[in-house]
Amino acid sequence: MPPINAILETVLYGENLAAIGSFYSEVLGLRRVSDSYPRGMAFRVGAESILLLFDPRETRRDGGQVPTHGSTGHGHLAMSVEPGQLDAWRTHLTSRGIAIEREVTWPTGARSLYFRDPAGNSVEFMAGDFWPR
Amino acid sequence: MPPINAILETVLYGENLAAIGSFYSEVLGLRRVSDSYPRGMAFRVGAESILLLFDPRETRRDGGQVPTHGSTGHGHLAMSVEPGQLDAWRTHLTSRGIAIEREVTWPTGARSLYFRDPAGNSVEFMAGDFWPR
Repeated sequence: MPPINAILETVLYGENLAAIGSFYSEVLGLRRVSDSYPRGMAFRVGAESILLLFDPRETRRDGGQVPTHGSTGHGHLAMSVEPGQLDAWRTHLTSRGIAIEREVTWPTGARSLYFRDPAGNSVEFMAGDFWPR
Repeated sequence: MPPINAILETVLYGENLAAIGSFYSEVLGLRRVSDSYPRGMAFRVGAESILLLFDPRETRRDGGQVPTHGSTGHGHLAMSVEPGQLDAWRTHLTSRGIAIEREVTWPTGARSLYFRDPAGNSVEFMAGDFWPR
């Protein structure tokens, strides 16, 4: 079977695209590399990953260059941060009025912070190793 | 602002978890590293990424260790493959009865193949550079 290198694009949806775009750029500090507002926008995360935000009402419309998609409800993604940065993130998020919904210390010693973006998507910052290699 | 290293977990949803799990392991060849059926399962993609498949009826239930999430409709993700592997993937997918829904050659020279998983999620294999650095 041919190989797959990596996950290139991860998608979250929200009908309030301007608000969630501001959240990922201004609160989380991600670098916006493409903007097709009101359809979607793209952010670089680290060297190799792209986070795409889409308004599902736009991406569900047939007739475009790419196949339709688009979901409703709350999605989830996790981003990795250095263990020494988790406390700084908690302070930063709280100072911006973002509630920490949950903190978990896993049996491996990894730790997770969970909070919500303005569309209600569950965002996790994980520090340390959790998944088997 | 503290740094973010990478996207660690990307999520797709489907109520037919057994079928989509088989698709990602047997048709796409991803390595399953965790199984919490009927709630979800995890696959490694490359060295650093995890693909999570969840039944949203399970992840929307309150009271678990992690916050609720779960969406309905068709999600999307893109995985990167080597340019020289795209033809092999088309042949492999077609031989397994998977229809290629769309092929796109982008202005940068990057090429994309689009197909559906058994939950209807739009999966893209992209070869070459597309997103600004």
